[in-house]
Amino acid sequence: MPEIRYNIVTREWVIIATERAKRPEQFAQPSRAGAKLPSYVPTCPFCPGNEAQTPPEIDRLAADGGWRVRVVPNKFAALDRDAELVRHTQGMKRVISGAGLHEVIIETPSHDAHLALLPQRYFDLVVQAYHRRYESITSDPRIAHATLFRNHGERAGTSLEHPHSQIIGTPIIPPQVRERMETALNFYDREGQCLFCALLADELQDGARVVASNPHFVAFLPFAALNPFHLWIFPAQHRANFGDSTEEELAALSQILRLVLRKLCFGLSNPDYNLTLRTPPREASGSRYHHWYISVIPRVTRIAGFELGSGMFINTALPEESAAFLRKAPSEPAEAPQGETHERLIQAQKS
Amino acid sequence: MPEIRYNIVTREWVIIATERAKRPEQFAQPSRAGAKLPSYVPTCPFCPGNEAQTPPEIDRLAADGGWRVRVVPNKFAALDRDAELVRHTQGMKRVISGAGLHEVIIETPSHDAHLALLPQRYFDLVVQAYHRRYESITSDPRIAHATLFRNHGERAGTSLEHPHSQIIGTPIIPPQVRERMETALNFYDREGQCLFCALLADELQDGARVVASNPHFVAFLPFAALNPFHLWIFPAQHRANFGDSTEEELAALSQILRLVLRKLCFGLSNPDYNLTLRTPPREASGSRYHHWYISVIPRVTRIAGFELGSGMFINTALPEESAAFLRKAPSEPAEAPQGETHERLIQAQKS
Repeated sequence: MPEIRYNIVTREWVIIATERAKRPEQFAQPSRAGAKLPSYVPTCPFCPGNEAQTPPEIDRLAADGGWRVRVVPNKFAALDRDAELVRHTQGMKRVISGAGLHEVIIETPSHDAHLALLPQRYFDLVVQAYHRRYESITSDPRIAHATLFRNHGERAGTSLEHPHSQIIGTPIIPPQVRERMETALNFYDREGQCLFCALLADELQDGARVVASNPHFVAFLPFAALNPFHLWIFPAQHRANFGDSTEEELAALSQILRLVLRKLCFGLSNPDYNLTLRTPPREASGSRYHHWYISVIPRVTRIAGFELGSGMFINTALPEESAAFLRKAPSEPAEAPQGETHERLIQAQKS
Repeated sequence: MPEIRYNIVTREWVIIATERAKRPEQFAQPSRAGAKLPSYVPTCPFCPGNEAQTPPEIDRLAADGGWRVRVVPNKFAALDRDAELVRHTQGMKRVISGAGLHEVIIETPSHDAHLALLPQRYFDLVVQAYHRRYESITSDPRIAHATLFRNHGERAGTSLEHPHSQIIGTPIIPPQVRERMETALNFYDREGQCLFCALLADELQDGARVVASNPHFVAFLPFAALNPFHLWIFPAQHRANFGDSTEEELAALSQILRLVLRKLCFGLSNPDYNLTLRTPPREASGSRYHHWYISVIPRVTRIAGFELGSGMFINTALPEESAAFLRKAPSEPAEAPQGETHERLIQAQKS
């Protein structure tokens, strides 16, 4: 019989419809062998040598004689960097001027690289860039909240092949974020502890949904996972705001995030996914009741009318089985590593 | 400059990024001329003659000598019709047994029919079936709420070609529905009137986002439309619960819904879309502060990391321009009508 599980953090109810369940490997994406990309594309604004095709650079992380990560304003920004913040309400209509920051984090010079397959030392730079941009954007007085995200593959909504993440600083705190803060505050009022810390302790004791861990982070499937491979990565200790992460914590985050993305890649044939950083706003930086985390949603199923119309979800896989599958999934490719391309490009860029 | 608009009903903020805007016709779906379907498929459980391939029939609407609309339990139901309702909480985990009703409304005997292209008299039967099933499902004491939806096309998550809608009766009221009721109640407390009635009066006075209307319904784009062609259909008078609709109102709903779907079909080359019926639960049937409505979300853009991670949306089209486009969009095909297929099948079914 199906069961309906409640996500105590997001307040989402998820129907776990086991009768419709596929085995975990059946969610693997069809092979994309035909879609081999070149390592350099002359018209790609994110490829090295084409830096003039982007708006002026904001930040870069260099290593081995060239840039490894580059940050530029989004050329088709959803918000205007230079706009003044103006609010107005007219009858039923409330509007804020579109002031905000929308940046692209170019994760590698190689057009055909795959984030999960980057060597650890380069992956570290991506995570460092996430942190630097979060800190920089949220220090703008017009910005109330920043959303960092990564769209991997067409089903996840990406429009450019070259690996990149994005961060959007908005002048408002989205109501969804506020509602979750309220949920966490209510729990704190009732139970006297952080909802996220309590949930994590429960998950670690149970163990059935844990995929990986290190001293600073735990990756697990939520009890009411929205879909077959919905993953959360929580700081193991209480950390309210992503911006407060130490260097050591960022290195540990880089390690576990890379590991999880590799397991998805090798276990499910490189599925499309969305990654989002969920952090309370910087104003809640010292909060005792809230906790930041990362959410990864592989797009192995569709968001359709039922989900849009109710805010409920149907998950056709048991989260405990998906977790067991991912625990066993390889984190190394079966055949020759992809690093070659990367090394080749590094050489090309040096010369 | 972009602007950020607030949806007073859903509490969603939408970035209207006009600098990235396409012209409305650029959202048209690429032609699917190659995908001509047969009018009958021997293996399709929804085609006439194959009735034994579905679970036992629940309801039917007949005309012209055969069934026109047929209702059956979903063979791969997300919830169990016969289960007992049991709730339990263990530590952080809250679970309800998966008791509920999941039905399929087969909208036409013709495999290759298109809902929007059905003659009005057959479209009326579909809307009548919506109402009958809503009433029937919500009279089950285990059911707290019913979500009626339609997934049109692959991007909208449909898995079966034969035109159909679905309705799922759940033992819980989704928190999203409750939150919207709270928003409406707060407005009523402050303003002394129904939020939806006030919003509709404002929209009618403004007129810029109205697409169509009749004495009982108004179709318009929300001021903060989630995406380029997000449409709402509101009852013109205060109506709390869909179940309370009269026959006359259902006929008027059928007329405006068919008109709107035809405008989408001919104006945007048959885009994929999700349709959902948003009604407060039956327990709020006499409510003075809430109002049911229909939401149509053409899937002309993707839900990606930013939307998933913040609950905010980016809309690249100005709702006022989209509404003007749809007001002018034809509701009749440019060439020969499709009705032939339908008539042919009716003959086939009779003989």
